[in-house]
Amino acid sequence: MARPDGRESGQLRPVTLTRRWSIHPEGSVLVEFGDTRVLCTASVTEGVPRWRKGSGLGWVTAEYAMLPRATNTRGDRESVKGKVGGRTQEISRLIGRSLRACIDLKALGENSIVLDCDVLQADGGTRTAAITGAYVALHDAVTWLAERKSLAGKPAAVMHRSIQAVSVGVIDGEPRLDLMYLEDVAAEVDMNVVCTGDGDFVEVQGTGEANVFRRDQLDALLDLGVLGCAELAAAQQKALAS
Amino acid sequence: MARPDGRESGQLRPVTLTRRWSIHPEGSVLVEFGDTRVLCTASVTEGVPRWRKGSGLGWVTAEYAMLPRATNTRGDRESVKGKVGGRTQEISRLIGRSLRACIDLKALGENSIVLDCDVLQADGGTRTAAITGAYVALHDAVTWLAERKSLAGKPAAVMHRSIQAVSVGVIDGEPRLDLMYLEDVAAEVDMNVVCTGDGDFVEVQGTGEANVFRRDQLDALLDLGVLGCAELAAAQQKALAS
Amino acid sequence: MARPDGRESGQLRPVTLTRRWSIHPEGSVLVEFGDTRVLCTASVTEGVPRWRKGSGLGWVTAEYAMLPRATNTRGDRESVKGKVGGRTQEISRLIGRSLRACIDLKALGENSIVLDCDVLQADGGTRTAAITGAYVALHDAVTWLAERKSLAGKPAAVMHRSIQAVSVGVIDGEPRLDLMYLEDVAAEVDMNVVCTGDGDFVEVQGTGEANVFRRDQLDALLDLGVLGCAELAAAQQKALAS
Amino acid sequence: MARPDGRESGQLRPVTLTRRWSIHPEGSVLVEFGDTRVLCTASVTEGVPRWRKGSGLGWVTAEYAMLPRATNTRGDRESVKGKVGGRTQEISRLIGRSLRACIDLKALGENSIVLDCDVLQADGGTRTAAITGAYVALHDAVTWLAERKSLAGKPAAVMHRSIQAVSVGVIDGEPRLDLMYLEDVAAEVDMNVVCTGDGDFVEVQGTGEANVFRRDQLDALLDLGVLGCAELAAAQQKALAS
Amino acid sequence: MARPDGRESGQLRPVTLTRRWSIHPEGSVLVEFGDTRVLCTASVTEGVPRWRKGSGLGWVTAEYAMLPRATNTRGDRESVKGKVGGRTQEISRLIGRSLRACIDLKALGENSIVLDCDVLQADGGTRTAAITGAYVALHDAVTWLAERKSLAGKPAAVMHRSIQAVSVGVIDGEPRLDLMYLEDVAAEVDMNVVCTGDGDFVEVQGTGEANVFRRDQLDALLDLGVLGCAELAAAQQKALAS
Amino acid sequence: MARPDGRESGQLRPVTLTRRWSIHPEGSVLVEFGDTRVLCTASVTEGVPRWRKGSGLGWVTAEYAMLPRATNTRGDRESVKGKVGGRTQEISRLIGRSLRACIDLKALGENSIVLDCDVLQADGGTRTAAITGAYVALHDAVTWLAERKSLAGKPAAVMHRSIQAVSVGVIDGEPRLDLMYLEDVAAEVDMNVVCTGDGDFVEVQGTGEANVFRRDQLDALLDLGVLGCAELAAAQQKALAS
Repeated sequence: MARPDGRESGQLRPVTLTRRWSIHPEGSVLVEFGDTRVLCTASVTEGVPRWRKGSGLGWVTAEYAMLPRATNTRGDRESVKGKVGGRTQEISRLIGRSLRACIDLKALGENSIVLDCDVLQADGGTRTAAITGAYVALHDAVTWLAERKSLAGKPAAVMHRSIQAVSVGVIDGEPRLDLMYLEDVAAEVDMNVVCTGDGDFVEVQGTGEANVFRRDQLDALLDLGVLGCAELAAAQQKALAS
Repeated sequence: MARPDGRESGQLRPVTLTRRWSIHPEGSVLVEFGDTRVLCTASVTEGVPRWRKGSGLGWVTAEYAMLPRATNTRGDRESVKGKVGGRTQEISRLIGRSLRACIDLKALGENSIVLDCDVLQADGGTRTAAITGAYVALHDAVTWLAERKSLAGKPAAVMHRSIQAVSVGVIDGEPRLDLMYLEDVAAEVDMNVVCTGDGDFVEVQGTGEANVFRRDQLDALLDLGVLGCAELAAAQQKALAS
Repeated sequence: MARPDGRESGQLRPVTLTRRWSIHPEGSVLVEFGDTRVLCTASVTEGVPRWRKGSGLGWVTAEYAMLPRATNTRGDRESVKGKVGGRTQEISRLIGRSLRACIDLKALGENSIVLDCDVLQADGGTRTAAITGAYVALHDAVTWLAERKSLAGKPAAVMHRSIQAVSVGVIDGEPRLDLMYLEDVAAEVDMNVVCTGDGDFVEVQGTGEANVFRRDQLDALLDLGVLGCAELAAAQQKALAS
Repeated sequence: MARPDGRESGQLRPVTLTRRWSIHPEGSVLVEFGDTRVLCTASVTEGVPRWRKGSGLGWVTAEYAMLPRATNTRGDRESVKGKVGGRTQEISRLIGRSLRACIDLKALGENSIVLDCDVLQADGGTRTAAITGAYVALHDAVTWLAERKSLAGKPAAVMHRSIQAVSVGVIDGEPRLDLMYLEDVAAEVDMNVVCTGDGDFVEVQGTGEANVFRRDQLDALLDLGVLGCAELAAAQQKALAS
Repeated sequence: MARPDGRESGQLRPVTLTRRWSIHPEGSVLVEFGDTRVLCTASVTEGVPRWRKGSGLGWVTAEYAMLPRATNTRGDRESVKGKVGGRTQEISRLIGRSLRACIDLKALGENSIVLDCDVLQADGGTRTAAITGAYVALHDAVTWLAERKSLAGKPAAVMHRSIQAVSVGVIDGEPRLDLMYLEDVAAEVDMNVVCTGDGDFVEVQGTGEANVFRRDQLDALLDLGVLGCAELAAAQQKALAS
Repeated sequence: MARPDGRESGQLRPVTLTRRWSIHPEGSVLVEFGDTRVLCTASVTEGVPRWRKGSGLGWVTAEYAMLPRATNTRGDRESVKGKVGGRTQEISRLIGRSLRACIDLKALGENSIVLDCDVLQADGGTRTAAITGAYVALHDAVTWLAERKSLAGKPAAVMHRSIQAVSVGVIDGEPRLDLMYLEDVAAEVDMNVVCTGDGDFVEVQGTGEANVFRRDQLDALLDLGVLGCAELAAAQQKALAS
């Protein structure tokens, strides 16, 4: 099976990071990995939840969701179903954990930032696009706080690393980078790799539901993921410089 | 109080209707009334809900929602709260009723169409923008069904009218068309007018929470609403012709 | 189609307003519009919700509900379904908005009043009967507060207007006042008109789901609604005088 | 502590059973035990729940609820809270079990009857009033089915016993019949006794939260309960004869 | 029908009370009545719920639940269903009321104890085993508080009685003690008796869903229940002495 | 920091797998990893969910939960909170995915097996103990089906691999196997490794919330995980042979 869009196995889809896509949030980025399109917003509120008051520490959390027709067939709204599904919660938790790895909550001071990642259109890799875009939105929100002199520490100390994520997988025995939906459902192994700009790992999640995987396959996927993340880090830097 | 964006009292904000904004839905329109931005999608499924089977009638329904940071301060997600709020349900019902007024369910045949109106950015008039955009998305979805020869009647019979909506209100005693958020909160009377392309009414909802209103004010608002809807009908036609 | 109970098109059903129907509430009125029977109670609590404390303003809110067998076929309880339906929420919000239009929350002072409108028997017009009865219950609750010297302003300043509501509709092309259930389901256009005792409008909601309506029909319905409300205002005054 | 209304310790409050209180249900009774006022309706539907189809057996179930201001202080609606409370469920189950003891589900045939007991005003003994009233509503519903020739057995076989219930309790060491609210909260022991018209027991529930109770107290309370139920059975018979 | 395990009609199943079954709780008892196996834990927290602060009184409450496969066929989890069922709530309330009858909340001081009774395996009598085991777990938790000098009164004053419970029922006309599941479903009358170690009653609940019962049967069941509770009280004492 | 229980860094805690711990389920195993104690049951039902009927494929799913006092401080019940938390759902999904990797759903035929993993006592590694125990319970359930000749394929074909899981983590820079709770909260990196008896991977989840991790650390943890799983596979085999 060739890649549906003709890419090389180690090639990312076109990536765009559009800052200030919406007017209200302190940080707001429309991230696109090919046809996958996620709106990432960072909302700042002064103060922290009650249980954290007086700790001197800030709070960063994330919520992920999909519009009902982001996918090929319409999904029922979780608000209408009255509960947040397991997949949604799992991804929200992953995004929150990943982004907390790049921020010094003490330097942030008693401020709260909520990262909302809403998938407007899905074509595989929504969670990795969300993490990659949320980093830029978070950066803008921290800059906004810095301009208001509301940070406890120096801006550079608050965000001491960048964070990126990409999916990798094995299709027909071949390791591939940044899977589209058609590849995702065909993958024997599927892995999400979250890295720092320095090439260290923040989170690694590999799953072989249909098939199991060997150590050498795992190694090849990790290599590919690290390469992809490095490219994404460059794209983030470029977006933040503009 | 002058209008924040310098408009005449009877002037609409710039209106754009971007068709095929997303790739998956059978109809998909990004509608903008100034800074208000709503993604309207129409999702077709063959067949109708169980209780309607064998009736020969189709089914059209609508769901409205806001992204958490569509507004100036972040709102909690209804999925996380575990229930759909009163305002959301009220607007979803209004959109569904309004759009059902333009469609002949017998000519549609036993097909179901769900209209999802997700507010990506809010600056007043989100429900009227949603109705105006949803009409175009619905039109595209019916065309899609026509191309597949899946309609029970002729395409023209299915959608026998167009539907538009606009808000009107009285600010400082002056009737104004298409209120922005700043005007909406300052309005003494607030009215939503849903019309057909022929200038008839589908729905009229006028509220004077802070103040009551006289018959002559009501008349002036209805006049303004009808004018605004006629302009929106032209914009819809132009979008559908492109 | 003649009116099922032989009324003239501009005639109300027999209206009764029975004050002090129950012993516990500060205000309690059983309102009947023909066979429609709604128990309206006004419950006073000192103080206001947390977010309103220290504002000097009072708070009035409303909740509407139907007993499961108020209607011809039994409806499932919303408590058992675990959520309040869209229709219920919409009507609760309408009643609350309507009654807040007659009360000066500053003169009320930091007191809260909840208006519960429970439909014991339904035959069309339950929301308009509820608004008409709730006004009387609210009046009694304010008098109760006045007797305890718990108002911030003078009693007359607290309730500076009366509020009434009635349904109107077009059946077979004829505008009719105060629709029974059989008329309600047959109506081409259905409108609820909420007025003040001075004949001004508080809320106007007109819907033409099956059919659209022209401006002259709208005008005729508004005329009829204003007349009906004037009669209801007289009935309220008589009940409050007894 | 003398009884607040001057009754003898073995005396019931005035009991009224008003049949056909509402127009829609197949059976409908307003039952009053003094100031306690419960609307009991019996709703018939042909057929039984899916899991019971083809069994030849009918189904009888009950739901109990309180209007928010049935009591001295307003209680939040269970529909708004999104769940049915433990007390409500417990009483609903008790009413259902009690009434199923008087009906032959085989003779009823595959019909379903829902008994709704809504407390309009509460002054102690709401569950016992509900059971006593629901029996009469159920009787009327069965008669309604008999008139339509919809029963599997003979009417007399369907309802082979009558059912009544009353509360008893010990206050200041004295056993008393049919407790008012003021007595209920002061009782050392509180018991609900459900009997058949023949004086047998259907259900006995005795609780001594604040205090424990001795066998001789239990015996005295049972004696009192049986006497009270016999009087209630006579009241039911009289109501059904009218 | 002979007893499935060959017991005499007045004989309990083998009873074991294993203290300190788990390492974390302040009190923890695995209670077994034959094959019925319930884990009872008592969890202490300093302080009381907000509405009780400053009262000087402690708080004891209970929650009962079943593992999904404690029974012969798997039951859906109440967490997944999103609500606690009527039976579960009823039993939780019974356990809480019963145990509060043995504890002096003033002597307990402002401490809270939650009794969790989780049925690991069910064979009838789960609620009575739970009450019997919870008493021992509560005793251990009070001792734990005494060792920390955290009680307001003397330890002996805090728990001034013991509490036991047992089920009794009539099968084929014969009164039997401590019903197994097979007997429970076959019983014409089913009663749960909660006693103190002094032989007084705390709660008596008798139900005759399929059949009604006479006073002499009730008397025989109460006699049997009191005897069974006395045996259980001895087993509790032995366990606490070990 | 030395290991709290004095183990070597590459040493598992004592592992026990007690089959047939409860009498009702088709498979039932109490698994203990040191003080972590999980009851794993496998419940068989004939047939599959509606959407899978006629596919010839079976269905295996899992649900994980914790008793409220399995941990050091009591957690509120998810049934009482009315929703299943994110962590619970995430682990339930992980267990289900892991166990589906060892079963041939075609050979299983149209049978459903639910794996319930209830944590009776927690001391770290509850999800890995659950997976390890659930494999044995699932094996017993498949044998039960084989004895009833209810499998579509040969028993050996149904379960073609064994599945084990263990946690690994880095504490003070040292990679350790099978973390206790005290180690879990102190870990810089935390990873769960799910393997087959052949040493292949089914799932790998590594998280470095407080810290990031390098490739060489990841490699060392994977090595350790594979070794631990091999030991667990031997324990499973021994348990199944007994």
